[in-house]
Amino acid sequence: MTDSTITAATNAAVIDRDRRSVFHSWSAQGSFGGLPIVGGDGTTVWDADGRSYLDLSSQLVNVNIGHQHPRVVEAIQRQAATLSTIAPAHANETRAHAAELILERAPEGFSKVFFTNGGADANENAIRLARLTTGREKVVSHYRSYHGNTGTAISATGDWRRMPNEYSRGHVHVFGPYLYRTEFWAATPEEEAERALRHLERTIQAEGPDTIAAVLLETIPGTAGVLVPPPGYLPGVRRIADRYGIVLILDEVMAGFARSGEWFAFDAFDVRPDLITFAKGVNSGYVPLGGVVISEEIARAFDDRIFPGGLTYSGHPLAAASAVATIQAMAEDGVVENARRIGGDVLGPRLTAMSAVAPVIGEVRGLGVFWAVELVADRETREAVSPAVVAAAKSALLERGVLGFFADNRLHVVPPAVITDDEAGRGLDAIEEVLVSIDPLA
Amino acid sequence: MTDSTITAATNAAVIDRDRRSVFHSWSAQGSFGGLPIVGGDGTTVWDADGRSYLDLSSQLVNVNIGHQHPRVVEAIQRQAATLSTIAPAHANETRAHAAELILERAPEGFSKVFFTNGGADANENAIRLARLTTGREKVVSHYRSYHGNTGTAISATGDWRRMPNEYSRGHVHVFGPYLYRTEFWAATPEEEAERALRHLERTIQAEGPDTIAAVLLETIPGTAGVLVPPPGYLPGVRRIADRYGIVLILDEVMAGFARSGEWFAFDAFDVRPDLITFAKGVNSGYVPLGGVVISEEIARAFDDRIFPGGLTYSGHPLAAASAVATIQAMAEDGVVENARRIGGDVLGPRLTAMSAVAPVIGEVRGLGVFWAVELVADRETREAVSPAVVAAAKSALLERGVLGFFADNRLHVVPPAVITDDEAGRGLDAIEEVLVSIDPLA
Ligand SMILES: Cc1ncc(COP(=O)(O)O)c(C=O)c1O
Ligand SMILES: Cc1ncc(COP(=O)(O)O)c(C=O)c1O
Repeated sequence: MTDSTITAATNAAVIDRDRRSVFHSWSAQGSFGGLPIVGGDGTTVWDADGRSYLDLSSQLVNVNIGHQHPRVVEAIQRQAATLSTIAPAHANETRAHAAELILERAPEGFSKVFFTNGGADANENAIRLARLTTGREKVVSHYRSYHGNTGTAISATGDWRRMPNEYSRGHVHVFGPYLYRTEFWAATPEEEAERALRHLERTIQAEGPDTIAAVLLETIPGTAGVLVPPPGYLPGVRRIADRYGIVLILDEVMAGFARSGEWFAFDAFDVRPDLITFAKGVNSGYVPLGGVVISEEIARAFDDRIFPGGLTYSGHPLAAASAVATIQAMAEDGVVENARRIGGDVLGPRLTAMSAVAPVIGEVRGLGVFWAVELVADRETREAVSPAVVAAAKSALLERGVLGFFADNRLHVVPPAVITDDEAGRGLDAIEEVLVSIDPLA
Repeated sequence: MTDSTITAATNAAVIDRDRRSVFHSWSAQGSFGGLPIVGGDGTTVWDADGRSYLDLSSQLVNVNIGHQHPRVVEAIQRQAATLSTIAPAHANETRAHAAELILERAPEGFSKVFFTNGGADANENAIRLARLTTGREKVVSHYRSYHGNTGTAISATGDWRRMPNEYSRGHVHVFGPYLYRTEFWAATPEEEAERALRHLERTIQAEGPDTIAAVLLETIPGTAGVLVPPPGYLPGVRRIADRYGIVLILDEVMAGFARSGEWFAFDAFDVRPDLITFAKGVNSGYVPLGGVVISEEIARAFDDRIFPGGLTYSGHPLAAASAVATIQAMAEDGVVENARRIGGDVLGPRLTAMSAVAPVIGEVRGLGVFWAVELVADRETREAVSPAVVAAAKSALLERGVLGFFADNRLHVVPPAVITDDEAGRGLDAIEEVLVSIDPLA
C-alpha cells in the first residue's frame, strides 16, 4: 500500500493539509484550526505532536464508550473481513442482532428498528413515520433544540442553524422548560413544567390539533444546554400527545446510550414515546450509524403499506457489528451504571461546589456524564459572559490538557461514560482552576 | 465475546430474524424476503445456505470495486485500530488524504471536499451551498431522478418516492432527454437534446431565472433507467446555467467512480459542474460515506462566512480510510479502464445483440458497467411488460445464480467494475436464457 502521503506529520502540517482540501461543518473555512488528533484510548486522545488530552467532550458527545474500545475495534475488524456492506433489501444477521439488542433496551411495545447513517436521517425518518401514520403534516419542536442538518431535521431544529436553511413546511416551535432563563415567569421547577405544558397545549390548540403529526423533543436538550426537564414535563407532554392523537418522538441521539446514566434518557422521566431516534452513543460513532426504534403500532401500519423512505446504507453490516459490540461491552462493563454513579457522586457534587469559588458560574445542570455549566457576567442578571471569555476558558482548558465542549456561554462537561473517578477528578481540577481565575466581566 | 445469538443459521432463519426486528427501506414490511447474504468476494456473494450468486447488481449499484477487496478491508482494519472516529472540528490526516485523492480526479478549479454519510446528505449540502452562494431558492431537477430520502433531497427527486414526502419548498421539475420515451416528439438524439434544452430554458425563464439557485442532475440518471444523455445535452445545460448565474450540481452518487467507465461520468460529456456530489463508488460503501466536491469559487465564499451545515460524522476517519484505499486500489488495478473496456467490448455488444433473439427487449442503453435493458410487451408501442413478467425474470435469474437489479420494467446490468470477461459472459448467458424465454405479453 503506497501510503507515501501519510506522514508522521506535525500538528501544523496536519492542520495545514486538512485545511487545504477539507470543507468543514458549521464554520468559516478561513478560521479552521482544529486539533490534529491522531490516536486515542479510553478518555484520552493525543495529537500529532505527541501531546495528550483528557477528552471531556467525547468529540461531539458521541464517544460514550471511550476511544478505541478493543472489543468494538475487534468487531469492526472481524465484520470488515466477513462482509462490509450489503444492500438493505437483503437480510443480514448482524443487522438483526443489533436491532434485537436495541429493542431489548427499549420499553415494552417497541418492535422494529429502522437504521440510518446518523442522527439527522433518524429524525427525518421518524417524522416521515409520524406524518404517514397520522396523515397530518406539522411537527412541533422546541426552539432550544438541534435535530440534524438535512431538510426536515434542520427545520425541526430550533436554534440559529435553522434560519439559513428553512425550506420545509409544517414546522412549529415552542419554548421548552428552562427555569434558569424561564420564558414563563416561573419560580419553581414544578411551575416551569406546568407552564411549559400549558404553552405547548395552547400552541397545539391554536395551530389546530388535527394538523399536528408529531411532537419531537430531545429528551434532554443537549447542545442547547443540557436542559434536564423538570419533574412532570415529559409525562405531561405524553398526556397532551395522547389527548390529540399526536405521535411523540423522543430524540435520544445525544442523550441516549449511557450519556444520562440510562440506556435511554427517558427511562428516568416516566414517559414512553412512540418513536425513539438514536445515533452517537449506540456505537460511539466508530462507524456512522443512527436509527429509529418504532412502536409496534406504528411498525404494523407498514406491514401491507410501502414505507416510502430508505437509504443505501440502511442496516449496514459494519455499522451494525460495531453497535452489537458496543452494546454488549457497555452491558458487561457496567458503563451505564458508571455514568450514573460518576454523575451523582463526582461530577454533580464537585461542579456544584465550584459555584462557591467561581463567581462566573451561573448554574450547573445535568446528570450522568451530561453536564452544563452556565458562565455568566453577572449572577443577578444572568447575563452571559462574552464570547471572548468563552474562548479564553477554552484555551486555558486546552493548555491544561483538557478538551471541553463549549456552546454559547456554556461549558459542557460530557466525558466518555467510562471515565474513572481519578480522570474525572483531574478534569474537574483543571476546570476549577480555569473557572476560578476567570474575571466574569472581562 | 458472547456471540451466542449469532449462529450458523439457514437462509430461512436469517430472513425470519431480520424480518422480526428490522424495518426495511422502500417496502411493505410484511412482504420482506431478502436474500440472506453472509459473505462475498469480488463479483460473487453467497447466502447462509451456501449458495453463490454472481452479483450483477453491485447491491445498490455501489460495490464498484467488488466485494471484500483485501486492500480496502485491510485499510478499514488498520484505521479501526488507529482511530475510528474523531469530531469534524478536529484535523485528521486520513480525511485530508481522501479529499486530496478525490480532488485529483476532479477537473481543474475544484478545491475542497465536504464529507457526508451518503448520497442524500451530499445533495442536501450541495443544494445548501448553491442557495447560500446565489441567495436564491429554487432547485430545478429532472422528473426521472432520485437524489436521496431526506427532506430536501427527496423533494429534488422526481420519481414516485417524492410524492408522499414532499414538504420542502423551492423545487421545480423538468423532463430530461429520454429518446426512447421522448416527451418532446423528437426523432434523433440531437433533436432530443436540443428540445430538452429548450424545455429546460423555457421552464427557467417561466419560473424566473433570478429565483433559481441550482440545476441538479444525475450525470446519467441511474435508477430512472441509465438514461445516457444525448450529445450536447450536458454542455447545453452548462451554457444555460451560465447564462442565468445558476449553480450546476451534477449528482455522481451512482454514476461516479468507475460505474460509467470514468472517474466522474461527466468526464465523457464535455461539461464541468460547479458542485459534484458523490457516495457509493467512492469507497464502494464499505463504510457509509458521501460528499460534495466544491469549486474554488464556491468554497472561497465561505472563507470568512460560516457554512451553516454539518454532521457528527463529517470526514469520519474510518470512512476516509476506506475511500483512500478504494481510490488507490482502483487506480493501481485499472478498475476504471476495466469498466470502460468491458462495457464497450462485452456488455454493450452482447446485450444489444440479444435484442435480435429476445423480443421482450425494447432498448439497451449504457456504458461502462452501467446498463439498462427495457423490457416491453410490444416493441411498436413500447408498452412496459407487466410487474408479473419482471418478477418472473428476477426469479429466473436468481435461479441461475445471478443477482440483477430490477427497476420498473427494466433490468439494470450493473456489476462491480472489476468484473472479468468470463464472469460477464456467464452473467450474460443467464440473462439471455431468461430474456429469450420470456413471453412479453404474459
Ligand atoms: C439531539 C441531536 N439530534 C440529532 C443530531 C444530528 O445527528 P447527526 O449529526 O449524526 O446527523 C444531533 C447531533 O449533534 C443531536 O445532538
Ligand atoms: C443518483 C443518486 N443520488 C443520491 C442517492 C442517495 O444516496 P443514499 O442512499 O446514500 O442517501 C442515490 C441512491 O441510490 C442515487 O442513486
